[in-house]
Amino acid sequence: MQTIPTLADIRAAVLRIQPYIHRTPVLTGRSLNELAGASLFFKCENFQRTGSFKMRGASNMVFAATEEEIRQGVATQSSGNHGQALSFAAQLRNVPAYIVMPDNSAQVKKDAVVAYKGKIVECKPTIEAREATVEKVLADTKAYYVPPYNDYRIIAGQATAALELLEEVPDLDYILAPVGGGGLISGTALSTHYLSPRTQVIAAEPAGADDAFRSFYSGTLQGNDTTNTIADGLRSALREKTFTVIRQHVHQIVTVEEQEIIQAMKLVWQRLKIIIEPSCAVPLAAILAQKVENYKQKRIGIILSGGNVDFSTVASL
Amino acid sequence: MQTIPTLADIRAAVLRIQPYIHRTPVLTGRSLNELAGASLFFKCENFQRTGSFKMRGASNMVFAATEEEIRQGVATQSSGNHGQALSFAAQLRNVPAYIVMPDNSAQVKKDAVVAYKGKIVECKPTIEAREATVEKVLADTKAYYVPPYNDYRIIAGQATAALELLEEVPDLDYILAPVGGGGLISGTALSTHYLSPRTQVIAAEPAGADDAFRSFYSGTLQGNDTTNTIADGLRSALREKTFTVIRQHVHQIVTVEEQEIIQAMKLVWQRLKIIIEPSCAVPLAAILAQKVENYKQKRIGIILSGGNVDFSTVASL
Repeated sequence: MQTIPTLADIRAAVLRIQPYIHRTPVLTGRSLNELAGASLFFKCENFQRTGSFKMRGASNMVFAATEEEIRQGVATQSSGNHGQALSFAAQLRNVPAYIVMPDNSAQVKKDAVVAYKGKIVECKPTIEAREATVEKVLADTKAYYVPPYNDYRIIAGQATAALELLEEVPDLDYILAPVGGGGLISGTALSTHYLSPRTQVIAAEPAGADDAFRSFYSGTLQGNDTTNTIADGLRSALREKTFTVIRQHVHQIVTVEEQEIIQAMKLVWQRLKIIIEPSCAVPLAAILAQKVENYKQKRIGIILSGGNVDFSTVASL
Repeated sequence: MQTIPTLADIRAAVLRIQPYIHRTPVLTGRSLNELAGASLFFKCENFQRTGSFKMRGASNMVFAATEEEIRQGVATQSSGNHGQALSFAAQLRNVPAYIVMPDNSAQVKKDAVVAYKGKIVECKPTIEAREATVEKVLADTKAYYVPPYNDYRIIAGQATAALELLEEVPDLDYILAPVGGGGLISGTALSTHYLSPRTQVIAAEPAGADDAFRSFYSGTLQGNDTTNTIADGLRSALREKTFTVIRQHVHQIVTVEEQEIIQAMKLVWQRLKIIIEPSCAVPLAAILAQKVENYKQKRIGIILSGGNVDFSTVASL
């Protein structure tokens, strides 16, 4: 798929991945609505298989690949949810998954990949080492490359979460998702554009890794010099394909501070009684910190992106 | 209600409380099933209004009371979930709730009662002071007394959780609930007796507050000299009415150690992505620690009792 996914592409992804993913529930909570002064609808991808929306894009690529393409397995670089999702999708298709991870990755993240039968290939914790290692793995194994986000098939897979939400909850005024590399928000923006064009699409980003915010408002793709945020899923930067979709179909990008993220995460734990990870709390943080104009009394959809919390890092918050 | 609730009594409670409670979902999880080697069905009362099953019994008593009985409000003693539930049920019936709490109760628990518009009456942290204070509140206010568990109307309300579970998931081999004062397990045992008599009812209790275990196997009501357990909802002791039901309709009581409780709680957080409180983890701890004989490959219902976690006390676990 070399062009921006059409609605037909997204619907094809729905049918393709349906046997391998959960249709996740949409939750609401009286006390959070009162606190926000708005009606919030949470699409719970924290309940998705492997604990995040990443399973949608990964399984879309894995099951769209031909037998010939995928026979030697799949490979990617990821220290997080994409690596777990790709490992599990590959396991479901009975091929090996090679996951390139920095050698300083948390043990809990390595354990998760291994639990889904992924094969970890360690590299030095630099971008250069990571890319060189991926190249070497691909050359050595002839595995099929499944990138974390900068691919229209990945974006079409991630788009299915918003599609399900919009089918279940019509008439949303806003829909929010976090932005890191941009796969989820791109898919969310496309589904919203096709199914509910009057709904405003808002990306929420940690101020400590605000490349998307700067890229969006400057019109030029920018990177992050530093990524100082607890939202470990959002440290990646946009690339061409996600930036292209975001420029066309996202209405606004807002940033939030670390304390706002932590507070929003804990509020969801306490009020909704569900586990979400820090990255996942960023859109709610944007609402509660009033970063979105004119949201009071509105109907707001929020994609809860994942629930893979490293409790050792959040226990002391 | 001066006699053990009949099925008709429980069905009347269902109709009475229906407008005020959530019908909570039943969750399953592949990875927990694999770990346990059994099919587990979790009835999620952590998603109940006020965060625990206590809302069922409290609203059953509050809405069964006559206008005359309840005009001056309701009162109880509780430092935990019953106090929150009664406060909210009273708010829904537009009468005041007086909640007697030890003056050393955690601030988070006081805050929760206040959030539900309950009026806290503090007492010294002894059983004598607590009972004297309740007597005084009842005399002063003419409020209607709603005990935490030793009342057949409370038991009939708590029975509605298992009734919903059994309607949704037939053919359970076992059904488990935690036991503290015994309201939840009594109601669970009654609904199971009426609707699924072949299902074995098992109560799970912390070894550090094992009065129910000792009472059940000795045949004589016994108390706790100490209550050394993180499961703060299970520090109460059985009383006559709950003991009567338990002796007739519970098949087995098993105890678990503190580390087993903590492990089970964290497993549920990590695998099901839902928040449960320590007391709530006790039945799953009993399964995972193999305290229940012959459970492998069986269909097991577990009542998840609540999700009101004091994160300041569990952060360091």
